[in-house]
Amino acid sequence: MSGMKSAHIKFETAPDKVAKRITKMRPSAVRLLFAAATRPDIISLAGGMPDVSLLPKSAVRKAARAAVDDQAVTLQYGGTNGLFETAQVFCDIVRDIGIRHKPENVIITTGAQEALDLIAKTFCDPGDIVLTEGPTYLGALQAFSAYEPEIRTIEFDDEGMRMDLLEEELQRIGKGNPRLKFLYTIPNFQNPGGVTMSPERRKRLVELSHEYDFIIVEDDPYGRLRYEGGHCLPMRAFDDSVIYLGTISKMFAAGLRVGWIMAPPGVTAKINLAKQGTDLSGSVFDQKMAAAYFRDTPWQNTLQKFVKTYDKRRRAMLAAMEEFFPPEVKWTHPEGGFFVWVTLPSYVDAKSMLAEALDNGVIYAPGDSFYPDGKRGRNSMRLNFSYESPENIREAIRRLAEVIEGRLELYRAFINAGAIKE
Amino acid sequence: MSGMKSAHIKFETAPDKVAKRITKMRPSAVRLLFAAATRPDIISLAGGMPDVSLLPKSAVRKAARAAVDDQAVTLQYGGTNGLFETAQVFCDIVRDIGIRHKPENVIITTGAQEALDLIAKTFCDPGDIVLTEGPTYLGALQAFSAYEPEIRTIEFDDEGMRMDLLEEELQRIGKGNPRLKFLYTIPNFQNPGGVTMSPERRKRLVELSHEYDFIIVEDDPYGRLRYEGGHCLPMRAFDDSVIYLGTISKMFAAGLRVGWIMAPPGVTAKINLAKQGTDLSGSVFDQKMAAAYFRDTPWQNTLQKFVKTYDKRRRAMLAAMEEFFPPEVKWTHPEGGFFVWVTLPSYVDAKSMLAEALDNGVIYAPGDSFYPDGKRGRNSMRLNFSYESPENIREAIRRLAEVIEGRLELYRAFINAGAIKE
Repeated sequence: MSGMKSAHIKFETAPDKVAKRITKMRPSAVRLLFAAATRPDIISLAGGMPDVSLLPKSAVRKAARAAVDDQAVTLQYGGTNGLFETAQVFCDIVRDIGIRHKPENVIITTGAQEALDLIAKTFCDPGDIVLTEGPTYLGALQAFSAYEPEIRTIEFDDEGMRMDLLEEELQRIGKGNPRLKFLYTIPNFQNPGGVTMSPERRKRLVELSHEYDFIIVEDDPYGRLRYEGGHCLPMRAFDDSVIYLGTISKMFAAGLRVGWIMAPPGVTAKINLAKQGTDLSGSVFDQKMAAAYFRDTPWQNTLQKFVKTYDKRRRAMLAAMEEFFPPEVKWTHPEGGFFVWVTLPSYVDAKSMLAEALDNGVIYAPGDSFYPDGKRGRNSMRLNFSYESPENIREAIRRLAEVIEGRLELYRAFINAGAIKE
Repeated sequence: MSGMKSAHIKFETAPDKVAKRITKMRPSAVRLLFAAATRPDIISLAGGMPDVSLLPKSAVRKAARAAVDDQAVTLQYGGTNGLFETAQVFCDIVRDIGIRHKPENVIITTGAQEALDLIAKTFCDPGDIVLTEGPTYLGALQAFSAYEPEIRTIEFDDEGMRMDLLEEELQRIGKGNPRLKFLYTIPNFQNPGGVTMSPERRKRLVELSHEYDFIIVEDDPYGRLRYEGGHCLPMRAFDDSVIYLGTISKMFAAGLRVGWIMAPPGVTAKINLAKQGTDLSGSVFDQKMAAAYFRDTPWQNTLQKFVKTYDKRRRAMLAAMEEFFPPEVKWTHPEGGFFVWVTLPSYVDAKSMLAEALDNGVIYAPGDSFYPDGKRGRNSMRLNFSYESPENIREAIRRLAEVIEGRLELYRAFINAGAIKE
């Protein structure tokens, strides 16, 4: 066959056919590093994994049995919006946090990650404007960037996204600008920031969304994992136009890939159209397991176990940072969730420092990954406290402090010699 | 709160913010109709569902138990390419059909539907050219259209896609045209056509792909469901540059949403990037179930049960069409798969006839859904034989024949009166 000969040439040229959106995507530096970091002596603070060993085997077994027993449904194609009984269960569990929503307007997604993809797919033409916290969740940046919007970021402080900076940005964009599509926020225990948006700012944000006509996308993966302070009402609870995203990844199982979108009916119909092309439907089997878990097992007891365990780890991390970190280092104080955001002096490059950290037996997520331009945030890092034991966390922070101290000493010497500015 | 007042206005305006790609998408007429058709006396030939009641409960239980017992892995986040052991199992099962592929170059997807989305996401900029059979799988058209390529279709005959028409189209496109990205084909028992591409045409297609520099995307959901004739080698078996798509939906369970992409390494890496944004990873739990099913249960016996059952239903449909359909109606003769493609005289509109069919207790998928423009194929329909019993299929064809006969009588009268041309 004449075609056979050229097979090897083509083998190499196919990647040149890729779309522009892909050439713009950077492989996650963190992911590549994780793949390399398989030495058993390395303690990782880089991930964002729940500790699934806390899940009672009996509850998992019960949920799986419910799915197996309903084989005619769970092994068959499902509807694009997902199983109605699962949507009902999700509507029940968000009622505790002040959200009233009808199951017919829920779209069940393949994890909240698919929700992010679908929302950008539904709303974004190239060049449209999307607002986010800066830094923000890397997976959201990856999902949005496939549809080539212009992502503009708003800084946060200890009370979440700064509304003064948001207003300035909105004034630049202008009222009624058709390019402005949505603002994406993680108001509770933000990833990677760890900060929580205050109730006052939530109200102000909703006002601004009406004044400047944009959609609020409220992503709430960690909302139930609060270790101190009181519950803040989600924006969806006081405004029906907010799109609310949830997931079972942190309350039950990330490996099942079940999340949800609660949106106004008109929006739901559009997202359903986008989803038909993406995956037809999510896993019906997993959706049934989720329904059974949250309806037929004592999931709130398990959630309390998660909360207690993660809180201990958080305290261990905060205490170790107090103990070991040099005074030039600043960090956030999360009241829940999985992460602390650490800011080093501006002259320290956390990304290049990662190789030294790896040598010293600890890894973290460098801060530039959480910005759309990959440039800002170079002197910062995200630390995860949900996965390792308190002892390992303390040891990891000790090791990290050594690495930071090494960098700072070098820079202090340069500063003292007048070679660089502070 | 001032924002509260305008909430209802916004509720209605958010859908106006949708991206162009969504405004171009048509809700599937078939899907809307299915939702309406809940009367128990209606026999549906419109769907494409496997008969999951044929799956042995013991095998499903065994597969679920394997996933439950590996909780630390199956409930945790997985890698973007999917579970390695599952990739290994998929490489093992395609070896029977002549494909040798390394598990490290497999990407496990959320059903083959996600594979279609990822391939278009990876390769298509707006205006790029994609070639497909016409008619072709509706889900592929939905997946591709989100990335706004120009989809050009090539007719098939009893030996699959017509290579003479393809060559003409390729000459129009021109050699080395950078807009030409890939050709999508379902060579075995095509959906909706039911036809199979001959070995000669497969070879010719591979030659043309090298000559005109395009990627072949070979989608093979039904390949194992052959009821007569001999196995045809997949193109991937004799050319390494082909992208091969598989799924467990027809061999095991559609509700688990597990499919795969087998591609050259350079392509795999690009698709992985696209997938990070879409869903991070598929369901690890479902992937483990798939691995256990195809490794630890007698799946080939179950496959034989599928083959025997579907073959009986196919024969029932073909015999009933012989018996009841008027001589003006033509149809394909599928050697496997799920579907028969029926062509009515050009003056019959199968879409408008659907309402009468519904009244008469039978539904089908009207042919225009399977064309990118939604205009061609109006005098054709897809009939599914995988789901209903032989008795129901015979009755459904009888009912459908009545409806067609009614239309034809009307037209025959018009034709005889000279009011319309034949």
